[in-house]
Amino acid sequence: MAPAGAKRGILERLNAGEVVIGDGGFVFALEKRGYVKAGPWTPEAAAEHPEAVRQLHREFLRAGANVMQTFTFYASDDKLENRGNNLSFTQINEAACDLAREVANEGDALVAGGVSQTPSYLSCKSEDEVKAIFKRQLDVFIKKNVDFLIAEYFEHVEEAEWAVQVLKSTGKPVAANMCIGPDGDMHGVSAGECAIRLVKAGADIVGVNCHFDPLTCVQAVKLMKEAVEKAGLKAHYMVQPLAYHTPDCNRQGFIDLPEFPFALEPRILTRWDMQQYAREAYDAGIRYIGGCCGFEPYHIRALAEELAPERGFLPTASEKHGPWGTGLEMHTKPWVRARARREYWEKIRPASGRPLCPSMSKPDSWGVTKGHSDLMQQKEATSQDQLRPLFDKCSATQ
Amino acid sequence: MAPAGAKRGILERLNAGEVVIGDGGFVFALEKRGYVKAGPWTPEAAAEHPEAVRQLHREFLRAGANVMQTFTFYASDDKLENRGNNLSFTQINEAACDLAREVANEGDALVAGGVSQTPSYLSCKSEDEVKAIFKRQLDVFIKKNVDFLIAEYFEHVEEAEWAVQVLKSTGKPVAANMCIGPDGDMHGVSAGECAIRLVKAGADIVGVNCHFDPLTCVQAVKLMKEAVEKAGLKAHYMVQPLAYHTPDCNRQGFIDLPEFPFALEPRILTRWDMQQYAREAYDAGIRYIGGCCGFEPYHIRALAEELAPERGFLPTASEKHGPWGTGLEMHTKPWVRARARREYWEKIRPASGRPLCPSMSKPDSWGVTKGHSDLMQQKEATSQDQLRPLFDKCSATQ
Amino acid sequence: MAPAGAKRGILERLNAGEVVIGDGGFVFALEKRGYVKAGPWTPEAAAEHPEAVRQLHREFLRAGANVMQTFTFYASDDKLENRGNNLSFTQINEAACDLAREVANEGDALVAGGVSQTPSYLSCKSEDEVKAIFKRQLDVFIKKNVDFLIAEYFEHVEEAEWAVQVLKSTGKPVAANMCIGPDGDMHGVSAGECAIRLVKAGADIVGVNCHFDPLTCVQAVKLMKEAVEKAGLKAHYMVQPLAYHTPDCNRQGFIDLPEFPFALEPRILTRWDMQQYAREAYDAGIRYIGGCCGFEPYHIRALAEELAPERGFLPTASEKHGPWGTGLEMHTKPWVRARARREYWEKIRPASGRPLCPSMSKPDSWGVTKGHSDLMQQKEATSQDQLRPLFDKCSATQ
Amino acid sequence: MAPAGAKRGILERLNAGEVVIGDGGFVFALEKRGYVKAGPWTPEAAAEHPEAVRQLHREFLRAGANVMQTFTFYASDDKLENRGNNLSFTQINEAACDLAREVANEGDALVAGGVSQTPSYLSCKSEDEVKAIFKRQLDVFIKKNVDFLIAEYFEHVEEAEWAVQVLKSTGKPVAANMCIGPDGDMHGVSAGECAIRLVKAGADIVGVNCHFDPLTCVQAVKLMKEAVEKAGLKAHYMVQPLAYHTPDCNRQGFIDLPEFPFALEPRILTRWDMQQYAREAYDAGIRYIGGCCGFEPYHIRALAEELAPERGFLPTASEKHGPWGTGLEMHTKPWVRARARREYWEKIRPASGRPLCPSMSKPDSWGVTKGHSDLMQQKEATSQDQLRPLFDKCSATQ
Repeated sequence: MAPAGAKRGILERLNAGEVVIGDGGFVFALEKRGYVKAGPWTPEAAAEHPEAVRQLHREFLRAGANVMQTFTFYASDDKLENRGNNLSFTQINEAACDLAREVANEGDALVAGGVSQTPSYLSCKSEDEVKAIFKRQLDVFIKKNVDFLIAEYFEHVEEAEWAVQVLKSTGKPVAANMCIGPDGDMHGVSAGECAIRLVKAGADIVGVNCHFDPLTCVQAVKLMKEAVEKAGLKAHYMVQPLAYHTPDCNRQGFIDLPEFPFALEPRILTRWDMQQYAREAYDAGIRYIGGCCGFEPYHIRALAEELAPERGFLPTASEKHGPWGTGLEMHTKPWVRARARREYWEKIRPASGRPLCPSMSKPDSWGVTKGHSDLMQQKEATSQDQLRPLFDKCSATQ
Repeated sequence: MAPAGAKRGILERLNAGEVVIGDGGFVFALEKRGYVKAGPWTPEAAAEHPEAVRQLHREFLRAGANVMQTFTFYASDDKLENRGNNLSFTQINEAACDLAREVANEGDALVAGGVSQTPSYLSCKSEDEVKAIFKRQLDVFIKKNVDFLIAEYFEHVEEAEWAVQVLKSTGKPVAANMCIGPDGDMHGVSAGECAIRLVKAGADIVGVNCHFDPLTCVQAVKLMKEAVEKAGLKAHYMVQPLAYHTPDCNRQGFIDLPEFPFALEPRILTRWDMQQYAREAYDAGIRYIGGCCGFEPYHIRALAEELAPERGFLPTASEKHGPWGTGLEMHTKPWVRARARREYWEKIRPASGRPLCPSMSKPDSWGVTKGHSDLMQQKEATSQDQLRPLFDKCSATQ
Repeated sequence: MAPAGAKRGILERLNAGEVVIGDGGFVFALEKRGYVKAGPWTPEAAAEHPEAVRQLHREFLRAGANVMQTFTFYASDDKLENRGNNLSFTQINEAACDLAREVANEGDALVAGGVSQTPSYLSCKSEDEVKAIFKRQLDVFIKKNVDFLIAEYFEHVEEAEWAVQVLKSTGKPVAANMCIGPDGDMHGVSAGECAIRLVKAGADIVGVNCHFDPLTCVQAVKLMKEAVEKAGLKAHYMVQPLAYHTPDCNRQGFIDLPEFPFALEPRILTRWDMQQYAREAYDAGIRYIGGCCGFEPYHIRALAEELAPERGFLPTASEKHGPWGTGLEMHTKPWVRARARREYWEKIRPASGRPLCPSMSKPDSWGVTKGHSDLMQQKEATSQDQLRPLFDKCSATQ
Repeated sequence: MAPAGAKRGILERLNAGEVVIGDGGFVFALEKRGYVKAGPWTPEAAAEHPEAVRQLHREFLRAGANVMQTFTFYASDDKLENRGNNLSFTQINEAACDLAREVANEGDALVAGGVSQTPSYLSCKSEDEVKAIFKRQLDVFIKKNVDFLIAEYFEHVEEAEWAVQVLKSTGKPVAANMCIGPDGDMHGVSAGECAIRLVKAGADIVGVNCHFDPLTCVQAVKLMKEAVEKAGLKAHYMVQPLAYHTPDCNRQGFIDLPEFPFALEPRILTRWDMQQYAREAYDAGIRYIGGCCGFEPYHIRALAEELAPERGFLPTASEKHGPWGTGLEMHTKPWVRARARREYWEKIRPASGRPLCPSMSKPDSWGVTKGHSDLMQQKEATSQDQLRPLFDKCSATQ
């Protein structure tokens, strides 16, 4: 294994004004490939099926990603334990670090270790208890010497601050992402205020990930940037949104959409949508631009293709892609060759092929958050007796 | 390598009334992963990036597929040659056979070698010339001892008959698929008549693949079955449709949709759509049920889950999937736990999140087929001078 | 009152190849104005509120209509009786004739008396009984000396033939319209065969009205015309479709759509849709072109404007309408002035403003027709006990 | 003519907490009937075709309206003059007052005279010049002794204040409506601040009309009410919205939608949408509830039916309407009888029947207002030379 630090670090790149392309979300991509279970969403595949995880890392690397996030989402010990895995916390987390490092070494990528919000926080555990959870994950990242750390997917800025404080203690660069939109966090803290608090807690890079579509997330990060600058603080900015269109979300994001998580297909962004996103993110001054749930390797490639002029090169996987559809010049049918150009794809308004379906949904709006009894952690799966009242409360489909 | 024939053969299974689950399409799946170029759609990745091809085979196997089709689509010598590959026809085709066999041996799957329609036919080459192309591909399949053969993706039944005649000469079981819908082939031959001619040409299994959505394809195979039975003939039936909703297609199928091939995302079927498809195909008497372009491993798994009662077992990948969403019983949010049941997902009408987009498109309808000057084969990519009149002819985006 | 026949008759006009513009449907238009009750749909307003009926006649006349149909829909004695009206059958029908004549005399319009399908037929009454109903309505039309007769809104060609036979006995010109689409009548008789039988029964003009949108109805009349001509017969053709888009109807037409009759608004055709319809009807060789349910005066004006070149003049109401939106040249806002042209309105794809709604519905398909117990006539309104099983059978809203 | 004041006045009613139902917009309704020209939108029909205007008044009265607004929209002298009418300013305005009074006397309705924003204000004429225009209209209203006055359809609160000041000088009750949404007026004054300024200028009743759909308008009036109450002021509230769904509007309202004014059909509200609007308006504390462009008599009837419990009676036109669809109990088809109930219609999500159309549009956003050269008044219609750059600037259709 190559020594960490042999490459230019994340802050070195961002300080130089370079674009850093992130990778895409692993749990959704590997769920579709058959290696992650929706519901628990735990990453035991890192140890069980390393070839599948390695392959996905490699595809994102080929697509242009400069960061390999360790596949350790929800890999906290309590979470893993109560989901009935045979593998130990340590086995899984170490395997994930090794896979990320192995593939990072095949190209110009850094390894980032990540922590996310905990069920313990929602269940009102103390600051010490929550911080201890982050600390146990961190021990693995330190042992495996990741290049930098990401605190991501936090709905409450208070918990995110705790995470940043723990991560910062290592001396490694720290990025912090809320999973919020322009309306702010679940406690009503504005996006701008969240950013200020995270920077003050020690984050070098702030932004948002998951929960909303790309343009909504860019909008949220813009608000963060404005607030941070107005407060006279300094930071770098990042964004790793969903690959799903979510104009109909409320503050809680796509979790509330009736289609979550098994009927989101009609919302998937095209590669052209992704190029628009990359441009808008760049124009907003964001330099660390990646993806989260729903991103497939070709989505990341689209970011890298859009920003090729700024980066100075195309990603490896563009060997198999004509920019703006020009690969279609070789298509057998003449009317498909007629689509081999930017203006065609830039303007397309793609149909869903679903005339019985609407274009927007009403999100479930139960409006509960930290501390509500419905959100209290339990180790066992919800029982049928517990589920029945939920079924009744649930709006009939649509 | 394990000897072909060590497992029960395709006809043995079908004669016994068993369900055979096919795999999904490789060119679209690997295009999204960064290994296939849209436009040429050639399979050089089999030799260039065997790990990526192997991984996709493995995912389909885990999802329940009983057939590994060799990744040899458009791998005819003329095609490969004029697309500028460094690798030889033989290298690519042999590598594809080896990969299919390697993974098939990891489970209960057979290897199928396939041939498809040729540019030569559209360019009005002679029967002998066209048959010679099939023959050269067949030589590799024989050398590598595939378990059976598939002639698929034919728009004209005449060419499909020629292919079946060539394949049949080997003594191996032969399946034949038109890429047509209920309206019949490009020359106006009805679906039923196509099936009769293919059976008479020697096909053991007939059906359709690609070009239309699952329920449309099932409808086409129903017409085939009725006609074959009415003619007093006997055959098995298969179907390998798109994973895209295509209610707005005309006779040419999804190629004509303005979204082909780079904006089809909103049309992707959910896993629940797939279960409905599997049930309808089964109820129509079709026993070889698989997929084509757009299918991801989780789509194949949905077929295998729907037909688990008939097959008597769940696929390996169901270890990571609660049937009908029951994995959500473990979800953190109570309103998501409320979705952990069949009736919720069965009735969902998923929104596109695209309020500016329609639900259907007008297909391009240039109405040209075999022999038209626009379809004549040329080795070089279409020049800008050749493209300009096509751009003008092209309906403005929508 | 001016003597009937002072103007050129309907056949005189059609024989000369002239375009005859029909009027629009009265029950839907007057329901929206507050004078007709949805459900019974009876025309007692002719006697109760003559000023409202006269005004609607006048608006259609100004819009370009050459025919004033007497507002006598469902004005058969049994129907009126069981709907609890205070006014007699004779009062209503005579009043309707007088109003039509009064307004017809204000311009170049003829008066047409109409009969429609009877509940008695659905309830399997005898040919004599059904014909007697038509005869009683006819007596009024003869007394009031209408210019010609229309048998319209028939779902079964057998009953339509009976009506034509009765009407023909008067010696007046007879038009006959089925309320069917290209799939034929409720007993499975093809559109073409329906037309042949109606011509043989004595109809001078055949076509379709109601139940489907304009382009679907034109398609059905095309099939009628082809069949009549192939049979060596001669006839004129007419079409009076809905003003609602109904691509999702099955054979029964818009009655089956879940939106019928109180949520059809999003389906209403624009004036530009109407111009397209007028052109397609004309190009199909149809010369009597009008409307049915949903048509407002401006819809009829659009027909007359589109066919102004053929007719040689614009309708009176075009004094208040710039063709193709040119009246907008005077609009205050410059971006609205920019819409003052044909190409803008011809290409518009108007949004519904309803992102939670689909673009198509699943029609109720109970598949019952003449003779089914659910369709038996009863004088009293359906009781709650009778309704309950219907509610249960009814697909939940969407 | 009955003396004004013989009935209880508008403030008497509102002070007593009664619901006052307004009428619907005349220019759109009469444009569809063939008596108003879109573009100029002037009301010369009051003098040219009194029977058509009287009939529409009567339909709104039957539907439950308590107010007959004189049909004097855009009837200022400059406006009428430059639109080439043969009739004088006085003839038209007096005729309109007489018609309103005649029909008001047939029931329990008051007559309201109205003034609207002027092209002169947009062209930066002085306060005195603008007020003089209002004054000239007012002279007619005083002579004809209307019951109260409405200043409506103002985009800029400054001009609305001027109008209120002029109207207030008469001693008659004054209502003032901005045509704004929750985002405030074209100069960026908030909805709440607009209301405060109008009350301070002397308005007894404040609210909004036109430009946005009902629920958006109710939202705007809520903001007005909150601000007025917070400022310690007192007023009554009214709302007269569009009958079109406009979720996609920006601050300028439906004028900017590409469908304005000739392709708004898919956006028309159903009667059930209207009942929801009436309820929400009432619950927001609004007591003067009516309609504007797009309202047909059945829409006003729906308001009166929803608020029948509060008002204590149904409108006359409900003689021809079963509440919540119960008139369908008498329908011939059993599946239509199954729709004779509230829960069916309350939940319906009506389809557009337009699969090629989106559910929302992008509004034109030229962002110009008072003082911009594009908005300067000219007497003559825009010339082709003036139109050409507008056509180019105009977003291609969608």
